[in-house]
Amino acid sequence: MLSQQGFPMNGLHLVGDLYECACDKQLLERAAEPLKRIRALCETAGLTVVGERAYEFDGGGYTLATLLAESHVTLHTWPEYDMVAMDVYVCNHTQDNSAKARALARGLVEMFASKKSAIKDIERGEIAERYAAAV
Amino acid sequence: MLSQQGFPMNGLHLVGDLYECACDKQLLERAAEPLKRIRALCETAGLTVVGERAYEFDGGGYTLATLLAESHVTLHTWPEYDMVAMDVYVCNHTQDNSAKARALARGLVEMFASKKSAIKDIERGEIAERYAAAV
Repeated sequence: MLSQQGFPMNGLHLVGDLYECACDKQLLERAAEPLKRIRALCETAGLTVVGERAYEFDGGGYTLATLLAESHVTLHTWPEYDMVAMDVYVCNHTQDNSAKARALARGLVEMFASKKSAIKDIERGEIAERYAAAV
Repeated sequence: MLSQQGFPMNGLHLVGDLYECACDKQLLERAAEPLKRIRALCETAGLTVVGERAYEFDGGGYTLATLLAESHVTLHTWPEYDMVAMDVYVCNHTQDNSAKARALARGLVEMFASKKSAIKDIERGEIAERYAAAV
C-alpha cells in the first residue's frame, strides 16, 4: 500500500561537495570518529542506522557508508585538499523525512567545519510521482 | 599535486531511479547475489572494490553499499514495487573514469531488467573546478 508520501523511493538526496574543511585533521584522515558522530547525528535526527562500513586509504583519507533504514550516508575525504564529498539520501516511506536529511547534512558540514560548500537537492522518485499522479 | 582531471573529488555521480524491474525477484529481495554481481561489474569496468555492506529488511528488500577506491555504489530495493534506487559515483583522481561509471550503471540497470528508469548525471566538484580555472 502506498503511504501518504507516494512511492517509497521518493525522498530527498543531498549531494554535497565540502571545501576548506577546517576541522581537526583527524576527522578527514581516519573514519572511526566520523562513524561515531554519524551514529549520534542519526540518533538525534530520528534516523535508524542498520549498518556501516569504512575503508581508510594509505596516507590518510577514507571512504565510508552508513546504511540507514531510511537509505544512506556516504563520505569520501581528501585530507590533502581539506575536501569531503558527502551524500545524504533519506526516503519518505512512512513520513516526510526531508527535515531529518537536512539536519544530518548540516551536522556533517559543521563536523568538518567546511567554510565553502555546494549542496544540491535531488528529489528522488520523479517518475514514480508521475505514476502516482496518473492513478 | 593535482592530476590532469583537477581536484580529486571531481567525477561523475549517476543518480538512478529504476522502475518496472522485471528481473528474478530474488535480486530485489536478497543482497548476496547483487553484491557478487557488483564485484564482477566493477572488475570488468576496471574499478577497485575496497569494502561492502548490506542490510536486508524483514519481508524482503535491502540496502547495500559497495565502497570503491574511486568512490561508491549504493542500492536500495523495494521488491513490492519492483523499484530500485541506484547511485554510482566514480571520481576522476588519476584519470577520467566517467565511462567506467556509465558501464557500471548500465550493468546494474540490465541486472534488474528495469523497463523504465530515470538517471541523472551529477558532476561533482563544481566549486573545485572554478578554483582550478582561477589558478
